[in-house]
Amino acid sequence: MFWSGVDLGGTNIKVGLVSEEGTLLRSVTEKTKVQDGYEMILEQIIGMVRSLAASHRISMTSIAGIGAGVPGTTSPEGVVYFANNLHWQERPFQQDLEQMLNRPVFVENDASMAAMGELCCGSLKGVTNGILITLGTGLGTGLVIHGDVFSGSHGLGRQAGHIKVGNNFYDCTCGGNGCLETFTSATALVRYYIHRRDQMNHVNSEEILYQPTAREIMEAAAAGNSLAVEAFTRLVHYLGIGIANLINTLDPEVIALGGGLSKAGNQLLEPLQQSILKQLYDKKRFYTHIVLATLENEAGMVGGAMFARRKLN
Amino acid sequence: MFWSGVDLGGTNIKVGLVSEEGTLLRSVTEKTKVQDGYEMILEQIIGMVRSLAASHRISMTSIAGIGAGVPGTTSPEGVVYFANNLHWQERPFQQDLEQMLNRPVFVENDASMAAMGELCCGSLKGVTNGILITLGTGLGTGLVIHGDVFSGSHGLGRQAGHIKVGNNFYDCTCGGNGCLETFTSATALVRYYIHRRDQMNHVNSEEILYQPTAREIMEAAAAGNSLAVEAFTRLVHYLGIGIANLINTLDPEVIALGGGLSKAGNQLLEPLQQSILKQLYDKKRFYTHIVLATLENEAGMVGGAMFARRKLN
Repeated sequence: MFWSGVDLGGTNIKVGLVSEEGTLLRSVTEKTKVQDGYEMILEQIIGMVRSLAASHRISMTSIAGIGAGVPGTTSPEGVVYFANNLHWQERPFQQDLEQMLNRPVFVENDASMAAMGELCCGSLKGVTNGILITLGTGLGTGLVIHGDVFSGSHGLGRQAGHIKVGNNFYDCTCGGNGCLETFTSATALVRYYIHRRDQMNHVNSEEILYQPTAREIMEAAAAGNSLAVEAFTRLVHYLGIGIANLINTLDPEVIALGGGLSKAGNQLLEPLQQSILKQLYDKKRFYTHIVLATLENEAGMVGGAMFARRKLN
Repeated sequence: MFWSGVDLGGTNIKVGLVSEEGTLLRSVTEKTKVQDGYEMILEQIIGMVRSLAASHRISMTSIAGIGAGVPGTTSPEGVVYFANNLHWQERPFQQDLEQMLNRPVFVENDASMAAMGELCCGSLKGVTNGILITLGTGLGTGLVIHGDVFSGSHGLGRQAGHIKVGNNFYDCTCGGNGCLETFTSATALVRYYIHRRDQMNHVNSEEILYQPTAREIMEAAAAGNSLAVEAFTRLVHYLGIGIANLINTLDPEVIALGGGLSKAGNQLLEPLQQSILKQLYDKKRFYTHIVLATLENEAGMVGGAMFARRKLN
């Protein structure tokens, strides 16, 4: 049998066909049509799963189950309570997908699905307690406790992107101010850079990026661009606070970093280690390993598929 | 058989004799001789356990096991890694107590022990995921996950008193700045009141408390003293952030408040509910019940005893 994993993000939808062992066999990616609303996104996903099965020359009934990760909170029954970056509230996503696909579907938070992928087949393999942090449009956290993904008692946990770590110059899409993701996501990096650029009209114009992506800011920071360095340093400071808060609370063996920003590798990891250490309760015992996630863009798809497999086996 | 629980705090040491069912039969309290150092505190505890057995007319061998809670991080082997309010680093507390008492001893964080007490016999009874927050000299957090106390992979977790939630005017005894306990403990309330009082020499002198305790500030706030109201409002704001951070991460069924400040009851609970709600990721689903701990000063002793009982049974 085959399994399928859907990784629904604020920017892209990725759908993968996965083997019993967690190998990604084939995948397809489309831009998320957020502005077109919930029903259009359902249609997009259905089409993607079907075209994937067709292109692999298998019937839909050869797909034993489908796991879909969403960027928000989900009930144990797969209702999406709230997904700020999709502008969704109270959507029976699992039930709708199941009816339209006529296959068993399981819905969970996207970072939990990615954590399941890393737990089965990547950077969290063999870990009892671990955390995956995805640094993308938002900041997602997938928790592994006692060897399984953990969502809390009502599916409202693993939202550490929304822990408050200070005051920020703009509000989060969740309605709060000071959320970790408004300091440390790719979006946050770009917003802070633009905010400071617009404040500072005395800067040498050659150094200025006008419509920068997070990647361009990271590259400019590596090249010594002072404003990019400032924005990156601020991100590292707050990410250190957020990760130390998680260690001071949950003390996992491993915290793995995924998502677009994690592609910076050692440019991010090395200063981040110092930043975390400063904020630990017990600075003599920095026992949690901070690593890069290994499945990269595949984690959500593989994890979704393996989540469905665990549920059905 | 009998069990004993030791609740070692920065201010008092409490030692209790506890029945198989978790009933506190007899207890004794002494001021903690923090300034006299580690060995003196060991001697204090030994004397207290022995006098308790003697006054209950039982032999030391009738005590099946002893659980001791300390205000800091502890290894799975009962070494106290770090206890900022006792000025302890790397103390083999479990081993030392065991040798001196010649009984099985188990050492854990004090808030974990209190959480075990509430889990067995109090406000967390029957809970799968819950948190006890003790508001005393510091802010302790005891985590219950999957029906048992949770300390993390190396015993360095459940230190949410040291998550960073902003910048503060004084540093924490852990060496950090912005720790939750520096905004929300009894100590923090007093320090902020005095800090603001010393800044404001224009205040009507009749309203001023000169050497206030936390309880006196709470009483003055209830009576409408403006400076006390300000200090209390600030505490509630930051405690709301800290508790919402825990809900956004762990989504427990119940969070119970214990420690001296929790005696304020509804004076604290009612504004705190509003403060938490403002900081939740999903403001439509405030499903975690915020309650007062029920075992009060007995939680640490009962929990210590029941922790030892679970370990030996």
